[in-house]
Amino acid sequence: MQERQLQIIDILKFAARAHPTVEIVSRRIDEPIFRYDYAGLLARSSQAAGALGALEVRAGDRVATLAWNTHRHLELFYAVPGLGAILHTVNPRLVDDQIAYILNHAESSVLVFEKSFIPLVERLASRLTSVKTFILMSSAEDHVSGPIDALCFETLLATQSNRFDWPAVDESAGAVLCYTSGTTGDPKGVLYSHRAIVLHAMAAGLSGAFGITAFDVIMPCASMYHATAWGLPYVAPINGAKLVLPADKMGGEALHELIANEGVTYTGGVPTIWTMYLDHLARTGDNTHALQRVVIGGSAVPRAMAQTFAERYGVKVLQIWGMTELSPTGVIATPTPALLAHGESYAQDVIWTRQGRLQFGVEVKVVAEDGSEVPSDGETSGALLVRGPWTIRRYFKAETDAVDDDGWFDTGDVVTLDAEGYIRITDRRKDVIKSGGEWISSIDLENAAVGFPGVKIAAVIGVPHPKWEERPILIIEPHDNAVIATEAVMEHLAGHVARWWLPDAIHIEPVPLTATGKIDKKQLRQRFVTTN
Amino acid sequence: MQERQLQIIDILKFAARAHPTVEIVSRRIDEPIFRYDYAGLLARSSQAAGALGALEVRAGDRVATLAWNTHRHLELFYAVPGLGAILHTVNPRLVDDQIAYILNHAESSVLVFEKSFIPLVERLASRLTSVKTFILMSSAEDHVSGPIDALCFETLLATQSNRFDWPAVDESAGAVLCYTSGTTGDPKGVLYSHRAIVLHAMAAGLSGAFGITAFDVIMPCASMYHATAWGLPYVAPINGAKLVLPADKMGGEALHELIANEGVTYTGGVPTIWTMYLDHLARTGDNTHALQRVVIGGSAVPRAMAQTFAERYGVKVLQIWGMTELSPTGVIATPTPALLAHGESYAQDVIWTRQGRLQFGVEVKVVAEDGSEVPSDGETSGALLVRGPWTIRRYFKAETDAVDDDGWFDTGDVVTLDAEGYIRITDRRKDVIKSGGEWISSIDLENAAVGFPGVKIAAVIGVPHPKWEERPILIIEPHDNAVIATEAVMEHLAGHVARWWLPDAIHIEPVPLTATGKIDKKQLRQRFVTTN
Repeated sequence: MQERQLQIIDILKFAARAHPTVEIVSRRIDEPIFRYDYAGLLARSSQAAGALGALEVRAGDRVATLAWNTHRHLELFYAVPGLGAILHTVNPRLVDDQIAYILNHAESSVLVFEKSFIPLVERLASRLTSVKTFILMSSAEDHVSGPIDALCFETLLATQSNRFDWPAVDESAGAVLCYTSGTTGDPKGVLYSHRAIVLHAMAAGLSGAFGITAFDVIMPCASMYHATAWGLPYVAPINGAKLVLPADKMGGEALHELIANEGVTYTGGVPTIWTMYLDHLARTGDNTHALQRVVIGGSAVPRAMAQTFAERYGVKVLQIWGMTELSPTGVIATPTPALLAHGESYAQDVIWTRQGRLQFGVEVKVVAEDGSEVPSDGETSGALLVRGPWTIRRYFKAETDAVDDDGWFDTGDVVTLDAEGYIRITDRRKDVIKSGGEWISSIDLENAAVGFPGVKIAAVIGVPHPKWEERPILIIEPHDNAVIATEAVMEHLAGHVARWWLPDAIHIEPVPLTATGKIDKKQLRQRFVTTN
Repeated sequence: MQERQLQIIDILKFAARAHPTVEIVSRRIDEPIFRYDYAGLLARSSQAAGALGALEVRAGDRVATLAWNTHRHLELFYAVPGLGAILHTVNPRLVDDQIAYILNHAESSVLVFEKSFIPLVERLASRLTSVKTFILMSSAEDHVSGPIDALCFETLLATQSNRFDWPAVDESAGAVLCYTSGTTGDPKGVLYSHRAIVLHAMAAGLSGAFGITAFDVIMPCASMYHATAWGLPYVAPINGAKLVLPADKMGGEALHELIANEGVTYTGGVPTIWTMYLDHLARTGDNTHALQRVVIGGSAVPRAMAQTFAERYGVKVLQIWGMTELSPTGVIATPTPALLAHGESYAQDVIWTRQGRLQFGVEVKVVAEDGSEVPSDGETSGALLVRGPWTIRRYFKAETDAVDDDGWFDTGDVVTLDAEGYIRITDRRKDVIKSGGEWISSIDLENAAVGFPGVKIAAVIGVPHPKWEERPILIIEPHDNAVIATEAVMEHLAGHVARWWLPDAIHIEPVPLTATGKIDKKQLRQRFVTTN
C-alpha cells in the first residue's frame, strides 16, 4: 500500500473537488455577512498561504490567531498547516498575562487578529518577544495599521494567486497548537499533528459520533480558537456539509437569525448560549426551523433545556465530552439499539445524563485508586484514562510525556461507565468532595440544584471540615429577576441526593467563569476556603 | 500527539467493548446457522490466534483461506492480522492452476478451508510447495482428516483461552493478501497493510460512502475472499452494526430468508444475485421486509432492477465501483444536495447510471491520452487514475511500483466525471472499441442491450475490421425460455445509441463469466476474434 501521508490540505482539496458549490456563510466583525463555497475556500486559502510564504513563514513556524468563528480564521485553518507551518489559536478570553505568556512560549512569529482585538494587541505588543508581523483581519477600505504597523489581511491576499503549490508535509508534523488553561500552573500547549487532525475528522464524521452528511448545515458555536471547535472545520468538508460561522455573535437573536436564514440543521456549543437561544424563541414565539440536532458540551446539560429542545421543538440534544488533549472529541451521546432495548424513557434519561458513549479510536479505561479497572456497571466511579492515535503524548516543549508507559492519558475526570458503553462524568478529580471517607459528586449536586426554578448557574465546592474532612457548599447565580429562597433549594435537593450530600451552606451570588466558559472553582475556593 | 499505530485488532476490541451484544449471524456449510456477538467474536478470534500461534505461525507468515462468508472466516480476518501474520484469502472459483500458483507464490504455510473445498484441496495438495498445515473448518463431531491430515478448526480453538495477548504490530505491516486475476498474465497479489484497512474502514463508514449506523443490519454478499467483501467485515464493527453472513447461499430464497428473519437493512453484491432475489420475491409475493439499501457492484446495474427495488419495494439502490488495488472502495453513488438541485428524475438517473461519486481519501484524475486532465463535463472520457493513503503502491513481491512517480495508479478504466463529482465507467481501456478513429463504449452498448426484454446478459467486444480498424459485435444470453429476435434488438439499440455504434453482428448464446462473476471478454475474444 501507499504510505501516502494524511495531510490537512487534502481535506480541503477533496471538498473543493467533490463539493465545490457547497456554501460557507460567515459573519464578520463590522462587515456584512460573507458567502462563498468550498472552491472559494480553497482559492482564498491558497492566497493566504501565498501571502504567508511571502512574509517568510517557513515550515514549523508558528502563526498565531486571535480570532472568532469567521471565514478568514477558517482559511488559516488550511493555509497555515498547508504551508507546513503551525496554526496557533489563542483564546482571547484569557487575561493579558496568560495571552502574552502563551504567545511568547509558542514563539509565534506572526499574529493575525480580528478588529475586536485591536486594543488587546496594541496593549500587549511591547510584551511579545517573538511576534514580528501583525496582520489585521480587515478589508483594504477600513484598514488601520495603528502603532503596531499591522498589515491588512485582504490586501495581502489580493496580491496572491488563487492556486498554490502545496508542499508535501509529513503527517507527524505539527499543524495546530492550542493551549489549555489548566487550573494550576501555566497554560500548556497541545500540538496536533496532521495525522491526528485527519484521523479525528474521519472518526468524528461517523454515525456514532457527529454523524454528519452532505445534507447537513453545520454551525459550530464552540470556539474555533478552543481545540478547533470540536474539529468541525475539518469534519464538515470531509462530509460535504455547508458551514455557517457565527463569529462572536452568540446571542439568542443572532443565532436564531442564522439558524432560520441558512437552514442550519446541526449546531453545538456550551449550554449558556442555548439558554439565550431558547429564551429568544420563547420571547418571540419563533421556532427552530430546519434544526435537527444540538450537541452540547463544556458543562452538563440542564434537563429542562434538553426537554424543551426535544418536546417543544423536536430537536435532538446530544451531550459531548472532550478535551484539548484528545483532538478533542472523547465521547458523544448518540443512541444505540442496546440502549433503546431498555425502553424509550430509560434511553432518553441516559442520553441526557451521560456525556456520551465509547467512540472508535478513543480507548478508555476507568480505574480505581489502585489502578485496577472498575466494573462497567454505571455505578462505580473511577479515574478516566484514555489513549489512541489522536490522543496527546507530550505537551508542547515539555520534557516528559503526559502519558504513562502504556500510553494512557489521565483525563483528571472521575466517571462511571455502564454496560452499554455510556460514560457519566461525576466529577473532576480535584473537585470531588471527600466527606467522611466517601465521595460526594460536585457535578451531581450542581445538576440537582440547576433543576430548581430560577437557578441559572450552580457551583459546588468542598470546604475543609474538622470532623468530615470536607463538606460541600453551594453557590447559586439566579436568572435575572429570579428570587431564590435557600430553604426551598435545600428542600428540593433533599429529594434528589442523599441526606449527607446536602450542602452545609448556600450562597446566592454571581458565579465566576473561566475564559472557556466553565465555572471557575479555583476562584470560588480562593473566596470561600480561605475566608471560611 | 501519540503515534499510536492503526491496528486491525483494535477495530474488534472496540466493537467487543462498545457493542458487545450486537449479533453476528452466520450460515455454515452443512451445519445449522450460528449466532454470537462482537464479544463472542473477540473471544473466538482470540482462541484462533492462540491456535495459530501454537502451530508456530509467526509475524509475516501467510495463512491462506478457501472460505465463504462465514463466522469462522470472519474470525480469521482478525486473528491472523492480530498475530502480525498475513491473511491470504484465495478465490475458490479460480481454476486449479491459478489457485496452486497463488498459494505457491504467496508461500502460504497454513491453508484453512471450508468443507465445500475438500475435493479441491485434496486434488491440489501435492502441487502446493509451501503449505505445511491444513485446517478444515469443521466441528469436532464431523471432522474428517482425509489424506492431507487436516486439523479440525473447532478442536484447535477449544484448547485455547478466549483471551489473547495481542502483540503490537506496526501499522505498515502486511495484514491481508488478495490476488487479483488480471486479464493478462499471472494473478497479482495486493497486500493490504493494517493502516490501509483501518483507514479504509473509517472512510467507508462515512455518510457519503456506505453510511452505516449502529441500527443497520449488514449482510455482505460480495465475497469475503474477494477484496475483503468491500471491507464490510471491518466497517460494520466500527459502526456497531449487526452482521449477517450468508456463506455461499446466494440463491433468491436463501437470501430472502436471512433478510426477512434477521432484519437485514443493508446488503450488497453483484447484480446476478439480486436478479435471483427479485425473481424469488416476484414468485412468492413476499416483500423486502426491513431492507433499506442495496449496494451493487461488479458490473453495471440493470435499470429495471434499480426501478423494481425503488418503485415496488422502496429500497434504495446504490452503485459502487472499486478494485482490489483500492482496499477496495473507489466511488459509491450516494446523492448530494448539488445533484438533487437538478431535480428528482435527473438525480435518479445519475444514481442509477453512474458508478459513484468522489470519496474522501481516493484522489481521482481523469486524463486524455496526452496525460492532460479532461474537463469534468460528464461527456469527455479519459483514463481513470487514482491515488491515496489506501491505494496500492506495488504488487506483492513485484520489483517495480504499480504507480507512476507521482503516486498515480492507472485503473485501466475509461470514465467520464461530471461537475457534481459522479463518475461513469464507459469502458475498460482494453474493451473500448476503436472504430474509424472514434471510441465506442462496450459498456454503453451492453447497457442498451440489457434493456431489451428477455436479455439476461449482453456482452460487446471489438473485432478487427479492414476499413474501420475495429467494429463491435454483441453476444446475448437470454433469460430462461426467452426467445430473442436479433432484428428487434437492433431496432431497440438504434433508439439508444448512435447509428455507427450499432454492432455488426448479434449472437445469441451463453456468455462466459470469470471467477469473480464478470463477463469473460478474454474468452469471447478467443472465440470470436480468432475464428472470425
